[in-house]
Amino acid sequence: MRRTVFYISDGTGITAETIGHSVLTQFEPIEFDSFRIPFVDSEVKAHAAVARIRNAEALTGARPIVINTVVDEQLSELLTTSGAVMIDVFAPFIAPLERELGLSRTRRVGQAHGLVNFAEYEARINATNYALAHDDGLDVNYADAEVVLVGVSRSGKTPTCLYMALHYGVRAANYPLTEEDLDRQELPERLRSNRAKLFGLTIDPMRLQQVREQRKPGSRYATLEQCRREVADAERLMKREGVSMLSTTHTSIEEIASKILAQLGIEKHLY
Amino acid sequence: MRRTVFYISDGTGITAETIGHSVLTQFEPIEFDSFRIPFVDSEVKAHAAVARIRNAEALTGARPIVINTVVDEQLSELLTTSGAVMIDVFAPFIAPLERELGLSRTRRVGQAHGLVNFAEYEARINATNYALAHDDGLDVNYADAEVVLVGVSRSGKTPTCLYMALHYGVRAANYPLTEEDLDRQELPERLRSNRAKLFGLTIDPMRLQQVREQRKPGSRYATLEQCRREVADAERLMKREGVSMLSTTHTSIEEIASKILAQLGIEKHLY
Repeated sequence: MRRTVFYISDGTGITAETIGHSVLTQFEPIEFDSFRIPFVDSEVKAHAAVARIRNAEALTGARPIVINTVVDEQLSELLTTSGAVMIDVFAPFIAPLERELGLSRTRRVGQAHGLVNFAEYEARINATNYALAHDDGLDVNYADAEVVLVGVSRSGKTPTCLYMALHYGVRAANYPLTEEDLDRQELPERLRSNRAKLFGLTIDPMRLQQVREQRKPGSRYATLEQCRREVADAERLMKREGVSMLSTTHTSIEEIASKILAQLGIEKHLY
Repeated sequence: MRRTVFYISDGTGITAETIGHSVLTQFEPIEFDSFRIPFVDSEVKAHAAVARIRNAEALTGARPIVINTVVDEQLSELLTTSGAVMIDVFAPFIAPLERELGLSRTRRVGQAHGLVNFAEYEARINATNYALAHDDGLDVNYADAEVVLVGVSRSGKTPTCLYMALHYGVRAANYPLTEEDLDRQELPERLRSNRAKLFGLTIDPMRLQQVREQRKPGSRYATLEQCRREVADAERLMKREGVSMLSTTHTSIEEIASKILAQLGIEKHLY
């Protein structure tokens, strides 16, 4: 069972795709072929979208589903002529909010991911630069860090830090535990003195072995024995030092980031 | 005018926050103080959320707004007892989709950003590693790139590449135009031979000056004159070479990424 889905927006389409994906994962047995049609802000583009939708129906023999966040009513109506199943993302929420807030919504196009607040943008770019400069133990001055991730090499620290920086503007550093740290079973002083910012990532040794083997095939670093020992030593060390820990093996980057921020009590909003 | 908003989810809360933010930006004159309550997957956590919501109402004197993506009906009902304005994100879309698709939704918790498909995860991590290795002209072999961003230093290439990698699993490289390239008014051969992957970023010289001044205060690199000349030369070069170009001055990272993917015809789905 397959169905075609179009995410149609007058902006980036990120909101449409996020909500659409969340709703559609609840209809699991069906596989969805999804396509994004962003920046639909004119009749010409809306007509082109309608043509694509009709074409998909002709090709597949099934009504496509449209997840729509276009705010202009005329363009939205135009999209309806495609004959697709129309899911209008904002429609159900506007009336109750207008009632509650006592004012009408402003219909402006592509607001959610389009407007740029300079201060926010700068915070986000600065956080990304911070994450890059403090990646993998490069710069180990953590005075300005909000989060310092610790864990063995390839446990998922770098993508998590970059995600937190890009999405939440959080200054996130990461420190790879060295063999010396693991042997001593003690965190370096510069980490201990930033204990409230620390969070540990761990990973299943079999999974770690796959990841490392892909990176450095045939190396000692990538042997299962080495991975097992490092992970066991790292977990023991983090327990000893009272560092909260999360396994990245079956956890998405979003989920890891979200859990870390919740645990450390960092309340920053999503960009 | 201020209102308190809680994004409540049994998973990361990303879907709740994305849709909530999109809807609420349409009520612009009101300022929203927003809080995320993720991983609400038990009665204990739901009760704790209710207490927080009631407390906010007592403190502010206004009914808080709850943007809710908790799929468990009992927990959702429990949240309703808080007296908040309840916006249930999935509710309006389930019935029409159930009718259309001819099956009931599965109620499983935190699906959208929780499930990990190994192949997807790996694509995403590999893309992130690719972006890091091919950042800022480090590795200039673009054979495996899907996108190569070009532009002057600090025009927004790095965050855009990282965003495309983390979000769409796109292998994105970036090359900073050198003074030599600008003087010669010609792209290096390794870029010319990857023309279909090229996309140019440009930026307002005044803005560029601010960004560079923050990075290297008092340097020649950060003078307005230098910024003006580089930007003019870079724009001229990109026009000559027929490279599509976008200004990052008033554009969010999401919007830049979305436009590049649309322009280059890269159809990858959002993680």
